[in-house]
Amino acid sequence: MEKVATVRVLFADTDAMGIVYYANYLKWFEMGRVELMRRLGMEYRELTGTGIHLPVTEVSVRYLSPARYDDLLAIHTEIRKCKRASIAFGYRIEREDGVLLAKGETVHAFTDGDGKIVRIPEPFLEKTGFRQPLS
Amino acid sequence: MEKVATVRVLFADTDAMGIVYYANYLKWFEMGRVELMRRLGMEYRELTGTGIHLPVTEVSVRYLSPARYDDLLAIHTEIRKCKRASIAFGYRIEREDGVLLAKGETVHAFTDGDGKIVRIPEPFLEKTGFRQPLS
Amino acid sequence: MEKVATVRVLFADTDAMGIVYYANYLKWFEMGRVELMRRLGMEYRELTGTGIHLPVTEVSVRYLSPARYDDLLAIHTEIRKCKRASIAFGYRIEREDGVLLAKGETVHAFTDGDGKIVRIPEPFLEKTGFRQPLS
Amino acid sequence: MEKVATVRVLFADTDAMGIVYYANYLKWFEMGRVELMRRLGMEYRELTGTGIHLPVTEVSVRYLSPARYDDLLAIHTEIRKCKRASIAFGYRIEREDGVLLAKGETVHAFTDGDGKIVRIPEPFLEKTGFRQPLS
Repeated sequence: MEKVATVRVLFADTDAMGIVYYANYLKWFEMGRVELMRRLGMEYRELTGTGIHLPVTEVSVRYLSPARYDDLLAIHTEIRKCKRASIAFGYRIEREDGVLLAKGETVHAFTDGDGKIVRIPEPFLEKTGFRQPLS
Repeated sequence: MEKVATVRVLFADTDAMGIVYYANYLKWFEMGRVELMRRLGMEYRELTGTGIHLPVTEVSVRYLSPARYDDLLAIHTEIRKCKRASIAFGYRIEREDGVLLAKGETVHAFTDGDGKIVRIPEPFLEKTGFRQPLS
Repeated sequence: MEKVATVRVLFADTDAMGIVYYANYLKWFEMGRVELMRRLGMEYRELTGTGIHLPVTEVSVRYLSPARYDDLLAIHTEIRKCKRASIAFGYRIEREDGVLLAKGETVHAFTDGDGKIVRIPEPFLEKTGFRQPLS
Repeated sequence: MEKVATVRVLFADTDAMGIVYYANYLKWFEMGRVELMRRLGMEYRELTGTGIHLPVTEVSVRYLSPARYDDLLAIHTEIRKCKRASIAFGYRIEREDGVLLAKGETVHAFTDGDGKIVRIPEPFLEKTGFRQPLS
């Protein structure tokens, strides 16, 4: 998996238990997949510009150790699967000292603006190098 | 001011200081003005259906006493001003026992879908009873 | 599953795709389990008052149909499992018209204030009626 | 004012109007003041370690132009005032191309862990260079 971004934990991310609220890891997953796609030469903003959306259809997270205020976190992301009309990303959130805090996966559908499932677009395949597994 | 909604504080709303994070009051202000407008017979969803938007141009809040986990809060809202192309709402957030926790104000512009300022729409004036001050 | 709460979708909950952002369902899951526990006579605030916490260790969600601005949503929750030191909740988020939008599950550990795993507390078992499966 | 951080707008930050939700600027204000304090040699985490908190007592924002998905934003922050028991920060949020999107101010009290007002701590004055205005 590739380290694609780092974030500093704000009070905004924490809750009254003194740790990061569990929903906030999903924002960091979004940051991870957006930055990974940017590195692969496919900006998500361009993709939506062509009328293609990637709504999340599934998410799962395992929380191993809590992140706390002011922790510096590394977001690691990879593309796990790429099918005709869906894509899966994997994530690892690590603390500065290398401790794994959470890992997860999201699955996304390729849809048009009306939410109708469409085939994965050609430029996407080309730029991400996933043409092979689909043939 | 009218009490238009009640909310229960979740961990999602709090931070590691053990109190509600300051940005979250702005969500409750949104809840307040939406519910006030619904009571006045003008649903915000209908308004946007006619192509009119009400983006926030100013907000101010004074935090008097912190809200905590599981507190039951009452949201009080009123329309403060209504000009040709803008509207101001006032808010009070009170705890169940009547203690005032925060008060604030938002100012909104009337715009079309492209963000261009427009005059306050007729049905809005009629339903909210603000025709008078504009003449 | 029991319907334990209803929420109205705010702009705060939505994103630029025009639908509810995927992380926000996790807040509604929190609302669901807190209200279910309240109905079972065990307020979460009381539980933490005895030094017991219930941090989330796992979450999974399947998104079936998007929620949109101003939708009225019903939160359905149940206790799925209850082991010596963990508990699992199930959730269904339905739109006013009965359409199922999302379903999910969270798993929680029972810990003390320092995050050390502890056995499920007696009062919790008594009030929730889960003494049997543990004996 | 000093540019202390940059952020990329996520879907998480936007709403169904296609722009950044107004409450989210307050998170970026938090990021701004935390990073400014870090540069001044006074980490907020250290400060709370000495039992001192800086709860927000007032916030005001003027929204001049909307931020949109994937925009790269610069957060500019300064210390505006520093009194015996309070401090005020000013903020400017600019888009990559220099357009000013929002400006605001927060006022904070110095309190102990119980929320009781305390005098501004000596190390804070020394490190931020605000000893003079208080004498």
